Amino acid sequence: MNREQLFELIKRKQSFLCIGLDTDINKIPESLQSCSDPVFEFNKRIIDATHECAVAYKPNIAFYENLGAIGWLSLERTIEYLKGLGDDIFTIADAKRGDIGNTSLQYANAFLKKMDFDSITIAPYMGEDSVKPFLSYEGKWAIVLALTSNKGAYDFQFLNIDNENANKEALFEKVLKKTTEWGTTDNMMFVVGATKAEMLGKIRKIVPDHFLLVPGVGAQGGSLSEVAKYGLNDKCGLLVNSSRGIIYASQNDDFDIIAGIKAAELQLEMAEILENI
Amino acid sequence: MNREQLFELIKRKQSFLCIGLDTDINKIPESLQSCSDPVFEFNKRIIDATHECAVAYKPNIAFYENLGAIGWLSLERTIEYLKGLGDDIFTIADAKRGDIGNTSLQYANAFLKKMDFDSITIAPYMGEDSVKPFLSYEGKWAIVLALTSNKGAYDFQFLNIDNENANKEALFEKVLKKTTEWGTTDNMMFVVGATKAEMLGKIRKIVPDHFLLVPGVGAQGGSLSEVAKYGLNDKCGLLVNSSRGIIYASQNDDFDIIAGIKAAELQLEMAEILENI
Repeated sequence: MNREQLFELIKRKQSFLCIGLDTDINKIPESLQSCSDPVFEFNKRIIDATHECAVAYKPNIAFYENLGAIGWLSLERTIEYLKGLGDDIFTIADAKRGDIGNTSLQYANAFLKKMDFDSITIAPYMGEDSVKPFLSYEGKWAIVLALTSNKGAYDFQFLNIDNENANKEALFEKVLKKTTEWGTTDNMMFVVGATKAEMLGKIRKIVPDHFLLVPGVGAQGGSLSEVAKYGLNDKCGLLVNSSRGIIYASQNDDFDIIAGIKAAELQLEMAEILENI
Repeated sequence: MNREQLFELIKRKQSFLCIGLDTDINKIPESLQSCSDPVFEFNKRIIDATHECAVAYKPNIAFYENLGAIGWLSLERTIEYLKGLGDDIFTIADAKRGDIGNTSLQYANAFLKKMDFDSITIAPYMGEDSVKPFLSYEGKWAIVLALTSNKGAYDFQFLNIDNENANKEALFEKVLKKTTEWGTTDNMMFVVGATKAEMLGKIRKIVPDHFLLVPGVGAQGGSLSEVAKYGLNDKCGLLVNSSRGIIYASQNDDFDIIAGIKAAELQLEMAEILENI
């Protein structure tokens, strides 16, 4: 899927909602625990109840690895199920990988080829050869961490870099400028946390055309209208993620129905926002 | 295992060798391909042939994820086998993880508790709450990326940080100084690439007492004597990794015998170096 196709999908669904599948076995209703694969069953019911309102799903790989090989099977079943719903869903492996080229190639193959995710989140610390292997698959995307939504973002991402022309810039700005040299607006996005929405304006000056994946709306405190105000571009340019605020809105047997309602609420807000493009 | 116990182990084995299990199914001899689990069988034979010369093993998680749930089973069998050999082996999950606290907690649980690795490699970009969950297990270690051995290390790790007292410092130095505030010499190490051995002197001034995990000796061009010259401290303070140079020294049926010889050669060099402590 390229940028134009993603924008078409967003217009068709009137939504730029991404749903985070941070599926924690301990938070799944009791009634599902007797299924042969409770995590997949939970995901399937969440997806069935929400996929008309969402353009993207983002399994958080940590939650699957925590269950070992069994968790990996749940992940494989989930991506297979998402793929089976056709081409109106964009899939994101939230894995935050990054290693020397030879090793990144293995991660890229695992997520973008074997499991056939459309994209994967990437940590930039190890530089060009750690990112490039994720850019070599036609129609697939690397989503590079730029500015994250957590408190720890202030430890390094905001450090001032001393540059030649004496205009100070923060590390995350340097990361944006440098990594855009390696990819295009059709194969690279950036993670920008919603809890720092006012920074989106600054970021849009550096990457006016790239899509941004924005986590942190809802449970982490970010506001959708603020994100849209500063982050929207003429191709939408935003995928806004909500995880806990949707999938755990109810922890009872009606979890999927309530998730569907929460997703629909966000989709309605998004449809209004999209009228302004 | 704490720092003193690791040093005792190094003295007992007269070795600070770590063997990287970057086990690629395509590089395993034909004769093993018919086993029910060729990757585990390969690892087992490598471990059997080398464990008297090595203090640590470092499975590179990307190579296992590339095989999906089956690869994860091979990884689980490998760590179980290593644990079965007793307490004279230090195990490292080379995973380079790092995410918001809530998610890092899942990764920490997966690698340090469920699989019971002694340590895991961590990417620092997301800051304190992304690292801390890995420091909360008694006797376990977080090994934080400081200066890596790849070409891409120059993209961000060497950027000059503008600091208050006008002494310029590189990002990797800032990472070292900041992250040492979160852990101790008994639960935190740093990755420092061997291809930049001369930088080890500079690094030792910042972290004189911490253990350093040094990849890049052998296939990536780093020299053991250079690493020892700049990196050794009074508790050794080094784990030097070799992966391809040992496990793929032969790709024939004698791969384990040749791996044993290569490991023994390095162990002998290390024994000589350890005489100087």
